[in-house]
Formats: sequence, C-alpha cells, structure tokens
Amino acid sequence: MSDLTIRPLRGLPELREGDDLAQMIRERAELVGGDVVVVAQKAISKIEGRIVRLDESAKMDVILGEAKRVVRRRGSLVIAETRHGFICASAGVDASNAPEPGTLVLLPVDPDASASRLRERLGELTGREVGVIVTDSFGRAWRQGTTDVAIGAAGIQVLRDLKGQHDPNGYELKSTVIAIADEIAGAAQLVMGKLDRTPVAVVRGLDVAGDGSARDLVMPAERNLFS
Amino acid sequence: MSDLTIRPLRGLPELREGDDLAQMIRERAELVGGDVVVVAQKAISKIEGRIVRLDESAKMDVILGEAKRVVRRRGSLVIAETRHGFICASAGVDASNAPEPGTLVLLPVDPDASASRLRERLGELTGREVGVIVTDSFGRAWRQGTTDVAIGAAGIQVLRDLKGQHDPNGYELKSTVIAIADEIAGAAQLVMGKLDRTPVAVVRGLDVAGDGSARDLVMPAERNLFS
Repeated sequence: MSDLTIRPLRGLPELREGDDLAQMIRERAELVGGDVVVVAQKAISKIEGRIVRLDESAKMDVILGEAKRVVRRRGSLVIAETRHGFICASAGVDASNAPEPGTLVLLPVDPDASASRLRERLGELTGREVGVIVTDSFGRAWRQGTTDVAIGAAGIQVLRDLKGQHDPNGYELKSTVIAIADEIAGAAQLVMGKLDRTPVAVVRGLDVAGDGSARDLVMPAERNLFS
Repeated sequence: MSDLTIRPLRGLPELREGDDLAQMIRERAELVGGDVVVVAQKAISKIEGRIVRLDESAKMDVILGEAKRVVRRRGSLVIAETRHGFICASAGVDASNAPEPGTLVLLPVDPDASASRLRERLGELTGREVGVIVTDSFGRAWRQGTTDVAIGAAGIQVLRDLKGQHDPNGYELKSTVIAIADEIAGAAQLVMGKLDRTPVAVVRGLDVAGDGSARDLVMPAERNLFS
C-alpha cells in the first residue's frame, strides 16, 4: 500500500442549480486514474436544486416529509430513516451551508446516481477513470460527534470483505468487512471545511476501483438490532 | 488546510510483550511536530501483554469477562459495553492477528494511558511533539462493515466543536461537533493492513494538537437513545 494523499479543492464558487461541477473540478485539479473524488452532499444538492425556502419554524415539516420513518425523537432532535434507508438526524435536512438564510438543503434524491453522473462527466472531460463518493455527516448511536460517511458512490468498492483470508499467522478471518467508502468519506472530511466553502477533496493512492453502491452500506432491516 | 498524507509504517516485526514500540517507530519513520501516529489496538495489546491463551470454544467466557454489560446477543454475535464504555462486538476480544493460534487479544486496560505512554516515549526519542491515536475496528448500528475508531488518544483534539461559528453565508452552526479522532482512525485504517502486519501509520498535515481523551467520544448514558 502506497502513501495516501488527500487534497482539498480550493476556490470553488457558491454552487447553483445546473452548475457543471465536473468542469469546475477539472479546472482546479489534475486528476489521475484511480483518484477518488469526494463531494459533500450539499454541493450535489445545490447543483441538483434540492433546496427549499422556508423559515426555521417549518423545518420539522420538511424533515417529516423527507422521512420514511421516525426512529427516535427527543425535543428538537429527530432521528429518522430517509427514503434511501439512511438513519440520521433530521432525515438529512440541514440549514447550515444552505445557499442563503431561510433555505434548507435536502439530500439528493438518488445519491448513487448523482455520483455516477459526476463520474461520467469527469471521465468525458479528463479521460480518467476515477471513483466518486458523495458524503454527509452522520451521528452514531453510541459515539459523540459526527463522522462523514458515503451516501452515494460510483466506480469504487464500498465494502472490503476479508472473510476467508488469512492473517500473518494463518488465522482465517471470519467476519471482517471494512466499510472503506465510509472511511474515505471521513478521511476527506478532515480537509473539507464546513466554514470555508471546500466541499470537494481528491483522495489519491488507494486501490479501490469497483462498482459498489452506497445502498450496500445500509444495514439490512433483518440485521438491524437497534431500531 | 494543507494536503493530508497518510503513510503506513513498514517492516515492523511481530510484537511481543515489553517491546519498545516507540523505538521501532522512530527507526522506521522521520516524525515531525504535529504528526499523528495511529496504532492499531492489537499492537498495543501485544506489547502490554493483553493476550490470553484459550481455545475458541472458551472465547465466549473471555468476552463476558471483558464486558460490563451485554447490549444485544444473537447467535455467536455479542454486542457488549466494555469497561471503558465502548459498545462493540465481542467486547473487543478477537482472535485475528493474535500472536499465535489458540490465543485471543483483549483491549488495552486504559487505551488513553497507552497512547500517552507512547507519545511521551516518542517525544523522548525524537524531540517531537506528536499526537497518538489507538484504534480498533467497530461495527455501527445501522451501517454495514466496520470503520476504525479511536479508543485511545493523547496530544490531540478528539472532537471539533463548531457550535457558534458561522458558515460562509453567516448562518450560525448550532450543533456541529465532528469526531475528528474517529475520522483520523478510519483514514489510517485505509493504509493499515489486517493481513500484512502494518499496525502503524503516520498522518501528516492536520492541525489537531490538543488534550482530548477517547472517553470523550463515548456517548454519555443519558444521551444514549439506543441501548
């Protein structure tokens, strides 16, 4: 395994519906084959027009509209399952980094498809085969703080299954599956500012080409022991 | 924010109780101030002698001995709270990457203290102020696969609290706390092999010096909505 480098993409303008994000990325980064381009969900939602104009008081209605199921509720905290199957706070609805005061950003309708479109357009513009991950910041049941995870993916493995492989002493791994797309998402978050308009990073040095879907990261209902 | 680089440490021997891991790291990496040295829990447990010799059939007794509380149990899967407060599979007990067949590796007794000792010894040997994170691979309630998280920390912030700061449009962030130590742990996992004896990585380019404890990453009981 070679060194991994993670580079934030600087100088992006505020994004608007219809923007050609791939073109903007191409102008600011020299991509090579195998790079993984990580994009914060808000950037995708903005170019896809997933913005609603509403005052904060109506935010709960928007959240409930985005939710397939409310998992827990305490005060203003709503943990909900989205239509995609993700379990997260506010069904992914957020007012921070919205285009302007009084607007809320919703999750993309189909983040895997968003990732695929961006990957294809980057391929057209650069001739490079890259992976794309769309990320969001999710809380965890038993740990404080959020980590970024993959809600959309294209051109990469999302899970690395080591079952049946052997450690250096010959022990056969029985249940080791690593959520590498989530680890890549979290790694990219470390350089992607929430305060300074840096919603894209390029991860170089991984060997993760594949055809996974971020839906594969969702625990199937029959294995969900906690909600 | 500058580029982030993550470099696996190559050529470590199989570790034994009492080994001077800091010396081994120093011989294989040129550390600079501000680096974060990430070490897999198994490496720490081995040098601290947290190994038991038992056949697999007795593994459940060892798990229950390490658990403060069993959270869920289904077949051979036990999700337990450890004495440290971590909620994870098998209370952190694992047979993979154990020193030899017939042995199990337990979590360090006090992983923050392990991180502090390693950090101090690295400081003595190199004259550099670095951060140290001890990691383990934990599952998540609603997502498939494990991600590495921080179970011990020294010399770094573990949570980055953006509450009260403003996004580029002036919106005040209300509840944004990022579990950066967990994101660093996951990032390092991407270069740390479970199959090829690479339990240490060096993360460079972050500005995360601080004095957090990995205990701060544990959701306090009064905010735990799920177990």
